[in-house]
Formats: sequence, structure tokens, C-alpha cells
Amino acid sequence: MSIDAPTFNHEDFISDRSKGRKVSYFWENVPHVENPHPALIQLVGGLPNHGFFPVESASVELRDKPFSENPATTFEIEVDPSDPTKIGIRDAFQYNDDEGLGPLREQIRDIVKRVVKPISSDWDVLCTHGGLDGIMKVFDVIINPGDVVLFEEFTFTPVLSFLEEKGGVAIPIKLEKCFSSTPGLDYADELTNLLENWSTIHPDLPKPKLLYTIPNGHNPLGLAQSLETKKRIYDLATKYNFMILEDEPYAYLNFTKYDEEPNFNLSNDEFLSTIVPSYLTLDKVGRVIRTETFSKVYSPGLRLGFNVINKAFFKNFIISSQVSSRAPSGYSQIFVNNTINQLGGVEGWIHWITQVRNEYLKRKNAFVNTLKKSKAHEKGYLTVIDPDCGMFVSVIINVQNHKLFTGDNFDEIMDLFYISAVQSGFLAVLGRNMSVDKEFSKERSNFIRCAISYASSPDVLVEAAERLSTSLLKLFDQA
Amino acid sequence: MSIDAPTFNHEDFISDRSKGRKVSYFWENVPHVENPHPALIQLVGGLPNHGFFPVESASVELRDKPFSENPATTFEIEVDPSDPTKIGIRDAFQYNDDEGLGPLREQIRDIVKRVVKPISSDWDVLCTHGGLDGIMKVFDVIINPGDVVLFEEFTFTPVLSFLEEKGGVAIPIKLEKCFSSTPGLDYADELTNLLENWSTIHPDLPKPKLLYTIPNGHNPLGLAQSLETKKRIYDLATKYNFMILEDEPYAYLNFTKYDEEPNFNLSNDEFLSTIVPSYLTLDKVGRVIRTETFSKVYSPGLRLGFNVINKAFFKNFIISSQVSSRAPSGYSQIFVNNTINQLGGVEGWIHWITQVRNEYLKRKNAFVNTLKKSKAHEKGYLTVIDPDCGMFVSVIINVQNHKLFTGDNFDEIMDLFYISAVQSGFLAVLGRNMSVDKEFSKERSNFIRCAISYASSPDVLVEAAERLSTSLLKLFDQA
Repeated sequence: MSIDAPTFNHEDFISDRSKGRKVSYFWENVPHVENPHPALIQLVGGLPNHGFFPVESASVELRDKPFSENPATTFEIEVDPSDPTKIGIRDAFQYNDDEGLGPLREQIRDIVKRVVKPISSDWDVLCTHGGLDGIMKVFDVIINPGDVVLFEEFTFTPVLSFLEEKGGVAIPIKLEKCFSSTPGLDYADELTNLLENWSTIHPDLPKPKLLYTIPNGHNPLGLAQSLETKKRIYDLATKYNFMILEDEPYAYLNFTKYDEEPNFNLSNDEFLSTIVPSYLTLDKVGRVIRTETFSKVYSPGLRLGFNVINKAFFKNFIISSQVSSRAPSGYSQIFVNNTINQLGGVEGWIHWITQVRNEYLKRKNAFVNTLKKSKAHEKGYLTVIDPDCGMFVSVIINVQNHKLFTGDNFDEIMDLFYISAVQSGFLAVLGRNMSVDKEFSKERSNFIRCAISYASSPDVLVEAAERLSTSLLKLFDQA
Repeated sequence: MSIDAPTFNHEDFISDRSKGRKVSYFWENVPHVENPHPALIQLVGGLPNHGFFPVESASVELRDKPFSENPATTFEIEVDPSDPTKIGIRDAFQYNDDEGLGPLREQIRDIVKRVVKPISSDWDVLCTHGGLDGIMKVFDVIINPGDVVLFEEFTFTPVLSFLEEKGGVAIPIKLEKCFSSTPGLDYADELTNLLENWSTIHPDLPKPKLLYTIPNGHNPLGLAQSLETKKRIYDLATKYNFMILEDEPYAYLNFTKYDEEPNFNLSNDEFLSTIVPSYLTLDKVGRVIRTETFSKVYSPGLRLGFNVINKAFFKNFIISSQVSSRAPSGYSQIFVNNTINQLGGVEGWIHWITQVRNEYLKRKNAFVNTLKKSKAHEKGYLTVIDPDCGMFVSVIINVQNHKLFTGDNFDEIMDLFYISAVQSGFLAVLGRNMSVDKEFSKERSNFIRCAISYASSPDVLVEAAERLSTSLLKLFDQA
């Protein structure tokens, strides 16, 4: 790290939009009262008494593990539970805090301490309406029109719409190493070069303000960034003074390699030790924001996630919620909080996650192994990127082996592939559609992203892999 | 209505922001495929199979009426219910449509047809994250920076922050009639005058693009706008070509006058006939958008409501959701949908609402009657605005009877009142804090808004009214 690196100053990173907000509350602007009555009757807020809520109680039955229909544990949702770590109907069904309900935020803080282990203690958690909402709030608080955000060249493209809403500019970082014979999410050299030559490469753009990264189980590529790469990138963030938004929907779904014997009986400690440490373990100053979601490990319909944010930004994030999403559903919060509670708190929750991970690992191995043994693989028509974690397996279609390949017509061959695949009964996402800049990424766009999450069983993925192979044989051999 | 009124053209009302959005989906940009496989295996979206969701089932017990603890009906939340009007875990807990889940939208359409009765058939319903979110989406789709929105001079002020986010300008309409001896939410004359003399009164502002109104159970004033007034205002909207956003969180909580014998056994037809018809009953062209919420009749923690929108705007609203809130919580949706279903559909739901309304009516009458009989009322220190519907009773503090009143120092006397009230054990919202423009509304700001919703019983409101009277006696007699 350069010793003349600029100091990180939180104020410098807050958008004018966020700084300019003045939120006033209609119960404020009142005089100070000496000797207020000791038992005030408040007729202030338009909150319905919980006696108006139609639900009196609920009983929720949990599975003992994913896909199991065995009799499992049951918990009650009560109006006003005596255990303060549970949430009751009285609170969850009421108007509630934009940052999330107290007991849930406390559980999440415990999860963050156990799993993420930020090196600074100056952070807090803000509940969001899921991963995309968490990202959107970061752009809202950080990005002025014209500000530059760096992205891995292939990424979760809906994020780009959110950046556009705030007037930000997306610049891709090349991911050549991902497509090499030893694939890795390592672009520290690329990024060094880009930043050193910024004013030449992007003469009309300001220096980047933020790096958006999906470091574990990258979407679409499925790779995890090593701690060594993270350290190099964090040092660049310090030297060139930008922030890092670490988007981690997939970190928990982490895998062994396809040809290793999987361990489906990991202890919590063993499981956590296999996840590459967060950027927050490197960040003493508050330069890193982490966003997580309960979509992948609980369920997407919750619309519930959380951001881990340095306290210096916290007020701005709460106000951002107040003028946009407001609080997440209390119904979602009561389910998640009371489920974690029922499972025995953080350790029980991590155990649930290991079981979710086990299922994904079985799926991943079924799909990758079938592809590796396929005729199309043998003939060199495809290369599988064996993912480190997540929901996706990316498969490179070796277009250069196709008779009609001219060295430049990636799109054309991929269109032919797509037609052949759909006719063979196989559908996945074309890599080109997940690029920040199609032209910039053209020569690496000859891959597909295969989601292993929705199929009803690993067998379906075996069948899918066989169909993919069949479609490639048709494509290459009959051309 | 003027016969030279401009034609309503939907396109003219869509903001540049909304028009400029191009949403691309990463599963698009693919070639057309002839003869696709009849049983495609889709590995496209990153949706977890529902077997990953930890909840296997739930059982929800409903109250038979508000505040009751009698054994009541119970419904099951199943993975995949056979009744297509119920929502299952498989769908509700999954990623789902930004406009809301199909069965719930169908129920809401039925409610709208039964209760709101739009004259046009060219509308649809969009689920929102509650009332404020519904309003925010309207501002997002309609308002360009600099556009003018008309507001009742006292209003639900948090809405103003949302308008500010979009760069809109709020202009208040005087509500003198609300404070007269025959209070009514009738400002058609005021509005006519304002519009006729717009360029003189607001020489630097464009003509209004939108009127935001809370026509039934106005917040804070509790009054309902008569159909006759609505007709006059709608004609002004046609003549001066602006849209109307009808915000209706409170319409169902409608009241008889304090000195009438209340009927707590209304049939659904009788109940609905007492609600003043919606602006949508006057609107053939799509000029009116209605926003409702489930916060007041089900529970606020849902963060769930809906907008009724002319189909010509619908696509813009869906895209607005896609780049901001996205879908509301599926957990909230499954509770509301399956509750309505369990209650027997629309008629059962309306019956539930009549029971909620009955409780509010008891509260309203307890509070207003106690105030009307109070010493402070007898002495002329307060005037109660007996509300037509809603959660609020506004009480005018007759500051002109106070020794220290100079004819101008409204704030000063209201500060003295506030101190006296808090010392007497009574807290409510000062009217001045609910004004669009404090200076504009100063002479009508000597009132308080009392929420009757949160108290545990009508008795508490009786006690509150007595404390209010006591505090006024102290304020006026001991000054």
C-alpha cells in the first residue's frame, strides 16, 4: 500500500442527494415541556391498536432439512411473546422502524460477528428489502450523477438499471483469468493497470468512487475471490480512494471441487472456515459495505436482507429508507427472526445453511460431473467452469472449434448454439446478456450461465447436462 | 364543464424519467427458435426450488372480530393448495411479479368492482408496499422536476418528502370551510379561484399537473368530500387538464354524527352506500389514480397496498416498481389473500371491515361526546370537528379567547397549549406541523390532530378528552 494514500473521509463519499435531504416529522417542532405528566396518553401516531389486526396467532412448521417432509419443529407466532428475542404480532404487524425490528437486527448482528467478523467495531446492520434493495440504497447514498462505479465485466446486470436511476456510470473490469485454464476471480492486475492509466483509458471520466463486486459465487461465473486478491484490491481502494460494495447472496453455498469427495457433515466451524473472508476483515475505516439477502438461504418472497455499514453512513441510509422503501414487511421479519430463534439462534441457523449448501453441492457435482464426462466435453466443444460457490455453473462454448467461426462472429455462433439448445430441450442464460458492455466483453461472451437452483432434483440437472451435450454435438458436428 | 376543455392525453402526463427508462432482461436478446423442445429444462433464473424454503406449512388463527379473543376460524398455509384462489408457499415465498401475485390481484379487482365501481373498465390494480409507496410511484411516473402538485393545505406531510425526491413543487389549497360552523372538505370555490388566477398568484410556476387529495377521512381533518364537490373538482381537472391522486386509507372507517344513534349491524350494501363515491366513478378517461392500503383494515406491518390505474399508465408503473421497490413481500400477500379467502371472499372481507369500522365509530363517539360535554367546550375554549371517517379527530383550540392572543401569535398560544396539555397528560399532533406551507396556513393552524386508533379502549379516549379539557381550563383560566 502506498504510504501517501489519501485518508478515507466518509463525508466525501456521501452523495449530494443524500446530504440535501431534510426529513421533518410532524410530531416534532414542539416546545420543551418541564414536568410532563408521568403517564401521558398519546394520541399522536395513526397506529391501529393491535386488537384491530385480524390474526390472533399462527403456528409455523419447519422442515428438518431442505426437501424433507419429515415431521419437524413447530413454533408459535404469538401476539406478545414473553421471550424478548422472539417477535410478536403486536410489533411485527404494526408500523415499525425503517431499519428493521430490534430482535431481528440483534440476531443479524450476531450472525455478522460469527460469520463475517468485521475488523472494525464501528458498524451496524440495516434491514433491506433484499439484495437489490440493499445495492440500490448504496447507490442512493453514495452516487452523484456522473460518478463512476467499477463492475466485474460480467455481473448481475439488473444492478445497472439501479445505477442508471442515480445517474452513475458503469465501467467494466476485464475478467480474463476466469476463462483461463486455472479459473479464478482475480483481476487485481487488470484493476491496477486500469487505475494507473485511468486518465488515458477514460479521459472524460472522474476517478472511480465505488467498486461493485460479487466476490463469493460470482454471478454469473460462480468463482470466489481469494483473500490474497482481496488484499490487493483493498490496497488499490486505499491508494485510489474508492469504496467497495461487497454483494454476498451466494457466499454460504460454497463447494468442494467436482472431483473431490464432498463432506456433507461439516461442523459449523468447519463450514465457516471454508468461506473466503469478507472484505470487512480488511477494512478498518468503513470503506466497505456488505449486502446480504435472506433470499437464497430462507426464501426470496421475503424481500428481506441486510447491509453492514460503517456507522458514519448509517443515518444517511436510514433517511434513504424513509424516502423510498421504508421498513421491510414485518411479516417477513417475524418469520425469519422466529425461525432463527426456533433453530437455536445463530448456531442453529448456520447449521440450516450448511444443509442448504449440501443440497446445492449435490446439484453442482451432478451437473458438472455429467458435463465433464459428456461427449461434447470429450470433443472439446465445451469447457465447464467448476464453481466455487453459488447457484450457477457457467459453461464456455468453444466457438472457435465451429466451422463457421470467423474469429469475430461470437454472437452468430452463440445464436446457433441457442437454437440448437432450445431444440434439444435445454435453456440457460447467454453470457453476453450479463455483460456491462457487450462490445468490451465480446471475446469472452461465448459462455452460458446455468442455474442449478430451480430444478426439482439433481437428476433433472443430469438430464439437462446430457441435453446440453447433445445440442453441442448437433451444433458442431452437423454444421 | 367547459366544452373547450383539452383532451386527456396519457402520454402528456408521463414523466421524462419514466419515459426514459429502458429495462432489459438478461433472458432476452436471444434468437427466435423454430420447433423448440416440448419439455424444456430451464436453467435460466436463479430461483431456489421451493424445497429449499425452511417453512413446510403454517396455520393461522383469525379473530372473529377486532379485539375479540373468542375461538375463531383457522386456515392453513400450504405448499401448493388445490384451490387456485388461495396462494401457496411455493409461489408466495418465491421471487414473484412486481405487480403482485395473481390470486391477490384478482381478489383486489373484485373489491374494487364491488366497492369503488370505476365508471371506466380500462383500469388494473398494481400491488404496492403500502399507501406511501403507492403515492411515491405516482410521483415517480408523473412528476418532472418543477411540476406543480396541488395539496389540501393540511395534509399527510410525509408525502411532501416524496414529492421533493422527484423535484416537484407543492402548492396548498386553502381549506376555510373545514374550520367553519358547518365543516366540510369543500374547496371547489377556492380551487376555481386559484386556477382562474394561476398566472397572477403563481407567476413563476407552470399550471398544476396533479391534485393530491385524501377525500374520505381527510388526514388530519377527518372530513369527507361530498360527491357534489368531487364533481366540481373533477370538472376543474378536465378544464385545466390535471390529474387527481385519490389517497384512500381511511374511506372504510366511516362514521355517523356524534349525536346520531349508530348502527352497528349494517349489511354490506348499507355499509357501502354510506361511503362517498370515488373520483373513479366520474372518470372516463384515466385522469384519476386511486391508492389504497391494507394498513388500516388489516395491519400496517404488511407494507401492502394497491393502486387502481388506467391501463395506459400501467407499464410505466410496473417499470417504476422494477427499478425501485420491486414486489411486495410474498409473506404479506399470502396472509392477506388467504385471509380474505377464508372469510369467504369479497363479501366476507367487507363484513370484517364493517366490524373494524364499528370499533372506530365507538371510539370516535366516546371521544367527541366527552369533548362536547366538557367544561372547556362549554366555555368556548375548543371546537370539535366531528369527523366523517378515519382515525383522527381534529380539535380547534380557540386561541382568540386567550388573554395573550394578539391576533397574530398563533404559534405562541399553541406552544402554551402544548405545554399545558403535556403537563395534563395529553399528547396530540399540532396542526401547524401538518401544513404544506406554515405561513400560508398560519391562521387556521390552531388545531390539534388526535388519533383514536392506538388507545387500548374507548375508555382511554374518554380519559384523554377529560385531560384535554383540564389542560384548556388551565391554559385559558389561569393565563
